[in-house]
Amino acid sequence: MRILSGIQPSGSLHLGNYFGMMKRMVDYQENNELFCFLVNYHALTSVFDAPFLRRQTYEAACDFLALGLDPAKSVFWVQADVPEVTELTWLLSNVTGVGLLERNHSYKDKTAKGIPASQGLFSYPVLMAADILLYGAEKVPVGKDQKQHLEITRDIAIRFNNTYGDTFVIPEPDIEDELAVVPGIDGQKMSKSYGNAIEIFTDEKSLKKKVMSIKTDSTPVDQPKPIEGNPLYEIYALFLDDRGKKELKERFLTPGLKYGDVKKEILGVIWDYFEPYRNERKKLAEDRQFVVDTMREGARKARQVATVYLEKARRNVGLDYWNK
Amino acid sequence: MRILSGIQPSGSLHLGNYFGMMKRMVDYQENNELFCFLVNYHALTSVFDAPFLRRQTYEAACDFLALGLDPAKSVFWVQADVPEVTELTWLLSNVTGVGLLERNHSYKDKTAKGIPASQGLFSYPVLMAADILLYGAEKVPVGKDQKQHLEITRDIAIRFNNTYGDTFVIPEPDIEDELAVVPGIDGQKMSKSYGNAIEIFTDEKSLKKKVMSIKTDSTPVDQPKPIEGNPLYEIYALFLDDRGKKELKERFLTPGLKYGDVKKEILGVIWDYFEPYRNERKKLAEDRQFVVDTMREGARKARQVATVYLEKARRNVGLDYWNK
Repeated sequence: MRILSGIQPSGSLHLGNYFGMMKRMVDYQENNELFCFLVNYHALTSVFDAPFLRRQTYEAACDFLALGLDPAKSVFWVQADVPEVTELTWLLSNVTGVGLLERNHSYKDKTAKGIPASQGLFSYPVLMAADILLYGAEKVPVGKDQKQHLEITRDIAIRFNNTYGDTFVIPEPDIEDELAVVPGIDGQKMSKSYGNAIEIFTDEKSLKKKVMSIKTDSTPVDQPKPIEGNPLYEIYALFLDDRGKKELKERFLTPGLKYGDVKKEILGVIWDYFEPYRNERKKLAEDRQFVVDTMREGARKARQVATVYLEKARRNVGLDYWNK
Repeated sequence: MRILSGIQPSGSLHLGNYFGMMKRMVDYQENNELFCFLVNYHALTSVFDAPFLRRQTYEAACDFLALGLDPAKSVFWVQADVPEVTELTWLLSNVTGVGLLERNHSYKDKTAKGIPASQGLFSYPVLMAADILLYGAEKVPVGKDQKQHLEITRDIAIRFNNTYGDTFVIPEPDIEDELAVVPGIDGQKMSKSYGNAIEIFTDEKSLKKKVMSIKTDSTPVDQPKPIEGNPLYEIYALFLDDRGKKELKERFLTPGLKYGDVKKEILGVIWDYFEPYRNERKKLAEDRQFVVDTMREGARKARQVATVYLEKARRNVGLDYWNK
């Protein structure tokens, strides 16, 4: 099964990203054909700072490579290294009704938040459709908030096939309903924008500061501690197998547990868990050329698939004037 | 001066096209750097018939080459042979306000006429801006109906330069106010859509039929004939120099002139005038490979300019993650 996933190069991966997305990616690449790319074209709809985008893209490449996205198993590239996607965007845009885009929730939400109502933002779903159709993706993992985008992609693909003849694979959504919600240090869903995230690739001092400020309740030491809705328990549990979780649960339910001690433990667990990734990350950051070459090789592999679909689409709309 | 002009591959060139546009093109290419291309990407907003588009594009290439667009003097290519323009379209779209496009008259007019309100049609001016900016055009000949499009292009270019740093040449319009209006056989402005056009590359029988049906008034033979607003006079005059026009005028003003005789004369004049072009056109149509190679060579030359601007734009928005 060919699975495709676009990733915002938004920097500073945190535990939520790792346990929510990254581990699933790594699973996908073992049993499927994973196409995964950093969406720097999409980022242009809200990032107008070139050095920042440049750095974020590079850093994201390092992050994902360090965390186990394996270029030997998957196709991993930077979106704008395969500019063919913008050509397909144009071809698709002629079978995309303006009304379809006007009904797009994400556009409404973003402009309501003050992001400029640019043509880029408005046509975002068409570029997204091109991303998916250009690679013949069969399955696309989507969060609930992106369900509508995949619906739009399917609409566009069906319309294109009906208008010009069979060209594209109609992708299916892979709805992530079972996704564990990772709590942030304040107990809310961990999110960069909430400022409650525990970052993976950070120094020990910053990590300590974050872990030590995980919100705790005021249950006295000599009382059993709550499990559910307790971020301390939930964050710790991310790193444990079933047996470990059971043991941790017992410790929480046994009077005498000090939250401060648990925090110190968690700090050690996180630090140790990510040590190999951190080392790998450091090595990558020191070898810029390797990272760039790896991404370019990914783009080369992606392009091999892209050109097949693009040429078919170009032919089917009639851009090949050299043919009779 | 670099002048850029996009041409719809809409087929069946007529006297209005020739005397309105084509002769100006040929003048441009003598004294300027003319960049001229067949807009098959744009055509996709209203043409959903691949064989038709394919044929129209090829025929238009033959027409323009036959009529004197000289690939040795100008850069002449098919738009979609330089797909870089679609990438620039995306980059520009992020500094293009949706409101700017909503105020575009041409979009409103076209959708009012029943052309589907697609995203392609809506974003047409952004692709047009990319067409112009990708080639560093300094001057763009525009009819009155396209003035707004060039205004949009200038807005986008200025916005881009302000946002990301100096990247594009701001083009100037070359308003075609002195353009002679060529009347059709009914006396209205000659236009393919009015069905009043005298086509250039047609057989003698069809040409005769068209010329013979040029609208005439009922002035008796023994009276002087009107000059102004007389399509017979005006069409004939297109082929005459000042002296010839003077003589023709005298003939019209002298009683005894028979419209039927004049029509026969005009038929001969048109037929003879276009004979060398017709022969060239025939030769080209028989050498498909030559036409295709010529257009591809044009695209190669166009791309040399395009990549310079595109790379600059890519760098300025920050897609070059490989740089620090």
